[in-house]
Amino acid sequence: MTQYDELTEFLLRLGDSALIQAQRLCEWTGRAPAIEEEMGMMNVGLDLVGQARNWYEYAAERINDGTDADVLAFRRDERAFRNLLLVEQPNGDFAVTMTKQFFYDAWQFHLLTILKDAKDERISAIATKSLKEVIYHLRRSSQWVERLGDGTDESHQRMEKAIDTVWRFTVELVEKNAAEVALAESGDIPSLAELPEQWLATVNEVFAKATLTVPDAPSTFYLSARTGMHTEHLGILLAEMQFLQRAYPDASW
Amino acid sequence: MTQYDELTEFLLRLGDSALIQAQRLCEWTGRAPAIEEEMGMMNVGLDLVGQARNWYEYAAERINDGTDADVLAFRRDERAFRNLLLVEQPNGDFAVTMTKQFFYDAWQFHLLTILKDAKDERISAIATKSLKEVIYHLRRSSQWVERLGDGTDESHQRMEKAIDTVWRFTVELVEKNAAEVALAESGDIPSLAELPEQWLATVNEVFAKATLTVPDAPSTFYLSARTGMHTEHLGILLAEMQFLQRAYPDASW
Repeated sequence: MTQYDELTEFLLRLGDSALIQAQRLCEWTGRAPAIEEEMGMMNVGLDLVGQARNWYEYAAERINDGTDADVLAFRRDERAFRNLLLVEQPNGDFAVTMTKQFFYDAWQFHLLTILKDAKDERISAIATKSLKEVIYHLRRSSQWVERLGDGTDESHQRMEKAIDTVWRFTVELVEKNAAEVALAESGDIPSLAELPEQWLATVNEVFAKATLTVPDAPSTFYLSARTGMHTEHLGILLAEMQFLQRAYPDASW
Repeated sequence: MTQYDELTEFLLRLGDSALIQAQRLCEWTGRAPAIEEEMGMMNVGLDLVGQARNWYEYAAERINDGTDADVLAFRRDERAFRNLLLVEQPNGDFAVTMTKQFFYDAWQFHLLTILKDAKDERISAIATKSLKEVIYHLRRSSQWVERLGDGTDESHQRMEKAIDTVWRFTVELVEKNAAEVALAESGDIPSLAELPEQWLATVNEVFAKATLTVPDAPSTFYLSARTGMHTEHLGILLAEMQFLQRAYPDASW
C-alpha cells in the first residue's frame, strides 16, 4: 500500500473526510424530512465535494506521478482512504446524521481556522475558502442539535442515543498525533495543539444549550483511519461510489 | 383520485417534472465520470428542487386545504404525479442521462420564456427566477450532446442509441393540449402554441452540430402523465423517495 509523505497524507485526510461526508449527505436526497432540509443537505454536500476536489488537486500535484483528483476520489482502495472513521458511519436516523455532522463541522471549523494561517499558500487559500462555507455548516448543525436536544422527549432521547452511537469515533478528532506534531515542527502546517480543546469547548457549549450530556473523553479506538484501518461501512460505501469508474476505467468516450 | 383545477394541475406538472428530474440527477452522486461532472449534476439538481418547491408552494396555496410543498412532494401517490414521462425514465448510461437532460432543458427553456410574461404575477416571478438557472442548464447539456455526438465512434453510437431509447417520450413535450389551450384562452397563462416548434428548432440546431439525426415526429404514446398513467419506473422511484415520510408520517419530532 502506498504511503505518501506526511503532508500529502494530511491533505488526503482532509479531502477524503470531505468526500465521504458529502457522500453520506447525498444519500438523504429524496429522503429528507422536508424539501428545505433536503436542499440544505445537498448544499452542504456540494460544498464538501468542492473542498475535497481542492485538497485532492494539491495532493495530486505533490504526488506528481500523473494522478489527478478524479483518480484519487474514484480509484483508490479502502485501505488507501484516510477519512475520519466518524464520517463513514451510516446515516442512521436524522439525529445520528445531525450529530455526526455537528461533530465534523466543529472539527472542520477549528482546524480550518488554524490552517488559514499556514505558511503554505495553497493550504492557506483552500482553508480560507472552505472556512467561509463551514461557518454556515456549523451554524446549521448546531441549531439542529439544539432544536432536537431541547425539543420533545422523543427527540431528546434520540439525540442521546445518537451521541452514544457515534461518540467513540470522536477520539480521532481529539487525539494528538505524532505526524501532525512533526509537520508543525517543520513549519509545514501551524500547530494543532489546541484543536482538541477548541473542539470540546464547542461541543460543551452547544450541548449545554441542547440540554445534552457530554460523555467522558473517548478512549482510543481499535481502528484508525490514519493507517487505513476502517470500519466495515467504508468498503460498502466505496463499492457503490466507485462502481462506474472501476467498471469502465477508461470511460473517456 | 383528486383532480384539481386546470391551473393547479399545470403547476403540479411543472413542479413534479422538476422534482423527479432532480431525483434522477442525484442518483448520479458518487457515480459520475468525474468530480466536476458530479458537482455539475448536483448543482442542476439543487436548482430543480428549488424550482419544484416554488411551484408546489403556489399549487398548495391554490388547493388551500392545509396541504403544503412537503406533502405534495412526499405524500402523493404515483397516480397523482403529473411529471413528464421523460424525466421518470431510468438514467441508463451517461448518454441517456444527457439526452434526457437536454430534451427537458430545451422544453423548460422555451416554456419558462413564455411563462415569464404571464399576467399571473406568481407564475411570472417563478418563471423568471427559474429561467436564469435553466439557461445555464441548457448550455451545459447542449454542449455535452455536441461533444458526445461529435466525439468518438463509440460516443456517437451511444448517443444514437440513447435518442432511440427516449425519443418516444418527447411526444408529451410537443403535443398540443386542450387544457393548456383553455388556460391560455382564459388568460391564466400565455399561449403555448409555439412551444412545440421552438423546442424542435433547438433540438434540430444542437443535433446538427452534434452530427446526430433527429428522428421523425414521435407518435402518441399509450401512457400519459396528464392522467397519472406512468411508466413502471415512477413507482419504484417514489417508493424509494417517499419511504421515510410514509414510514414516519409525523416525523416532526
